[in-house]
Amino acid sequence: MRVAEEMNSARVFPSDLESFVIEAMRRYGLRDEDAQLSARILVMTDSWGVHTHGTRQLRPLLKNFPLGRLKADATAEVIREGVAWALMDGHHAVPFVTAYSAMQLAIQKARTAGIGYVSVIHTSHFGAAGYYATLAAEQKMIGMAMCNADPQMTIPGARGKVLGTNPIAYAIPGGHNRPIFLDIATSAVAANKIIRAKLLGQPIPEGWLTDSEGRPTTDPGGFPESGALMPMAAHKGYGFALLVEVLAGVMSGAALTKEQPSWVTGVAGNPPGPANQGQTFIAIDAGMMLSADGFQERIEWLADYIHESPKASGSERIYLPGEMEWERRDRALVEGMILPPDVVDSLMGLAQDVGIETLPFVALTENGK
Amino acid sequence: MRVAEEMNSARVFPSDLESFVIEAMRRYGLRDEDAQLSARILVMTDSWGVHTHGTRQLRPLLKNFPLGRLKADATAEVIREGVAWALMDGHHAVPFVTAYSAMQLAIQKARTAGIGYVSVIHTSHFGAAGYYATLAAEQKMIGMAMCNADPQMTIPGARGKVLGTNPIAYAIPGGHNRPIFLDIATSAVAANKIIRAKLLGQPIPEGWLTDSEGRPTTDPGGFPESGALMPMAAHKGYGFALLVEVLAGVMSGAALTKEQPSWVTGVAGNPPGPANQGQTFIAIDAGMMLSADGFQERIEWLADYIHESPKASGSERIYLPGEMEWERRDRALVEGMILPPDVVDSLMGLAQDVGIETLPFVALTENGK
Repeated sequence: MRVAEEMNSARVFPSDLESFVIEAMRRYGLRDEDAQLSARILVMTDSWGVHTHGTRQLRPLLKNFPLGRLKADATAEVIREGVAWALMDGHHAVPFVTAYSAMQLAIQKARTAGIGYVSVIHTSHFGAAGYYATLAAEQKMIGMAMCNADPQMTIPGARGKVLGTNPIAYAIPGGHNRPIFLDIATSAVAANKIIRAKLLGQPIPEGWLTDSEGRPTTDPGGFPESGALMPMAAHKGYGFALLVEVLAGVMSGAALTKEQPSWVTGVAGNPPGPANQGQTFIAIDAGMMLSADGFQERIEWLADYIHESPKASGSERIYLPGEMEWERRDRALVEGMILPPDVVDSLMGLAQDVGIETLPFVALTENGK
Repeated sequence: MRVAEEMNSARVFPSDLESFVIEAMRRYGLRDEDAQLSARILVMTDSWGVHTHGTRQLRPLLKNFPLGRLKADATAEVIREGVAWALMDGHHAVPFVTAYSAMQLAIQKARTAGIGYVSVIHTSHFGAAGYYATLAAEQKMIGMAMCNADPQMTIPGARGKVLGTNPIAYAIPGGHNRPIFLDIATSAVAANKIIRAKLLGQPIPEGWLTDSEGRPTTDPGGFPESGALMPMAAHKGYGFALLVEVLAGVMSGAALTKEQPSWVTGVAGNPPGPANQGQTFIAIDAGMMLSADGFQERIEWLADYIHESPKASGSERIYLPGEMEWERRDRALVEGMILPPDVVDSLMGLAQDVGIETLPFVALTENGK
């Protein structure tokens, strides 16, 4: 595996990767501005080191356009709203763009009401929820983003897939620190960790997966055809997944659970029609109760307190949520970033699909960096 | 232990327990209406089977009044507000009553703005966060309640107590079902589970506790003097605890982390002064985007879907969050409920403190039920 990993990894600079994926999206008929914004979001995600939700997702997502499951010329629209909330119809437009505009609207609502809560229906995979949360944090607001998804996860007492991994993300303005942010699935681990172990023929830790009978298993061999991901922290993860299903899906009118078509085309047994995910974006003015300065002073105190807490034996640093991701991005901007083999494969496939002959990868140095 | 448990448990009917704790609170000088509301909240919690946060907490809380850390004649007050939010000063009034009024205000804000976000400072332990969330659910709103607390929990890379267990609760209107609700600490388990194992001389599972060096341990012997609880699901629990610290504490101006005095009196090394917890109550009109009926129809569909999902091998039922609690309450109203030994001890101590001679316990039947 070590050899295979090194053979298939590739180094790329974020700006080069952005140019490549913009061109790929143009060839799929996306508008320039939509391609540029989508590229920024996906490459930001890769530069954080969150390769599961970066440019790797673009190839399968773009396949929705020729099938009419996504529409390059559509634009999301507000269909109902109040002083502190809005409901948008995504009209199956480019989902990154829709999600971006929904968070912008939530921020705008929060400027007057203190809080903005915007949900979107008729939309599809938006990449990493955390990206949208950071947009609010840059505006001195606490941002949250979440979505429901097709079932991949079991719940206590059940056999098989019942709920989506229903991710939830937040970002907090960090004052002199960059936004503090967390972006998690409500499952114990992401599906791709299990798929990876399966490909390698390795057992997985307990607590990740159940088998076809609903029993915990360390054998990833049956997934994803049978079995299901386990929720994080047992009933707690179940509870959070259900909350996201309600806040993003039940309230908004989006498709729920088994009625949710996968955003990936051609999945066996998938309900027909395009994805109709429910996505919710929340912005809360961080300074509404004290003041922007008051908030900033206090969040900096909290960040310092956490950084300066006594270290565990063997620990050199304590990180704020998101801090590792920002540091990875800093390095990526200077040195480029190493894309793992599955990302490289996906990008090479995408290049083939759209007839781009050269990829912007640079040679790996001798130690594979 | 089995014998000791049976000897010290006691059966009680909720209404009898309510009368007893109302009388105890009156003798501490609390106003009648405050005592009645507080009793309703605490006994509801016991009847759900959540004995860690029910009447067991009343004795240590009441000890704050003669010390001036809580004030029986004070009333919480709104000090700043917007269309969708408010900040209240609890003035160290009876914290259950303050929390109740804060959630009522959040519900009122949500009636006009769709969302209400109310934080309270200068307040203390409010019992089970979940109770306040259910108040919103009864009004066809999604309710959330959370608070920061004095440090009990470590975070990845740290040694010792850094953040509180910072609980978070939600409740969702269930349509023909009772409110769906979840009330959790962001630690892997509650501190009292570890204290209990320590008293019994039993090891604890991995993932619950770190030792004085910040290393995971299965020996509960050092806690709470040294060591710290571990967050649920590692970095995810850390992330949620930090979010609660910000939403309830940083934004509101409450005391943060190590500056937070414990609500329990006489804790060694505790910062001086009364508890100054930050508590946040959120209400979201569940029908604002579709309609109350539209929401109800969809939440009932989701509840049925969950109930009817295929069962795991050996599983007879799948529960909605909170469903077990409501069924325990149903039984408690008919048969009375068994209070565990630590609750009985606390209530007997309280009776002694205030000079009440008889407790409303009824004899356990032969099988200890």
